[in-house]
Amino acid sequence: MINPFTDEYFMKKALQEAEMAFEKGEIPVGALIVIDNKVIARSHNLTELLHDVTAHAEMQSITAAANYLGGKYLIGCTLYVTLEPCQMCAGALYWSQISKIVYGASDENRGFVKMGTQLHPKTTVVKGVLANEASELMKRFFVERRK
Amino acid sequence: MINPFTDEYFMKKALQEAEMAFEKGEIPVGALIVIDNKVIARSHNLTELLHDVTAHAEMQSITAAANYLGGKYLIGCTLYVTLEPCQMCAGALYWSQISKIVYGASDENRGFVKMGTQLHPKTTVVKGVLANEASELMKRFFVERRK
Repeated sequence: MINPFTDEYFMKKALQEAEMAFEKGEIPVGALIVIDNKVIARSHNLTELLHDVTAHAEMQSITAAANYLGGKYLIGCTLYVTLEPCQMCAGALYWSQISKIVYGASDENRGFVKMGTQLHPKTTVVKGVLANEASELMKRFFVERRK
Repeated sequence: MINPFTDEYFMKKALQEAEMAFEKGEIPVGALIVIDNKVIARSHNLTELLHDVTAHAEMQSITAAANYLGGKYLIGCTLYVTLEPCQMCAGALYWSQISKIVYGASDENRGFVKMGTQLHPKTTVVKGVLANEASELMKRFFVERRK
């Protein structure tokens, strides 16, 4: 039997979140946190609406997932995010001890890989899942914003 | 005339916040954001109470200060924090473009200096202000927790 709960399956939902950010004029990044194939948090970037640099999609999902679980550690959880996390979000993920991070497009300038931010040693990372879709959405956003 | 608004003056207030964290059983870290010698945000670590790794003192003050100012950039602001910021908080401070960071005790293990987290190029840093007071409070906390 084919498992429907692939990384692509959940990343598509994260992309839907990114599109919601796009429609609000936010840099289009969406995130999801999943445990045992169950979505326990979903969010999108709200830094403009909230006037708050900490309102990245990942940060909101970390808070929401911990709230759902009733504990601050996200062991057993997977974060799906359309864009590579920044220093701040990777730093939060470090503290959360999250088990897995799956991201779409790379952020060559301000992503945690380039910036050298450390994740928790128990965290595994998968990159490039639906990366084209995520980066097309980003490009479309910046083209429209320039108009 | 002597200016009463020294870094020590504001750091004492941040230490009061750290003591409030201590009394709640939180790792005792306190923070303050100041603009033109006016305190616009004050907070202390609430990660245990909120079950939320993102609830560091600095993160709360960044959000509160931006809310007060009605904009997400903290240009012209100074953060006072009793302990050296971590990767997450330094990453948030990077995005905020805050003008100055003053911290007390260094965090040799998980502080942003050791971790190599980048701040905004326009941010200046002063360290070691009332460092002994801050680290004594931390030591006292961990001694009591072991009992």
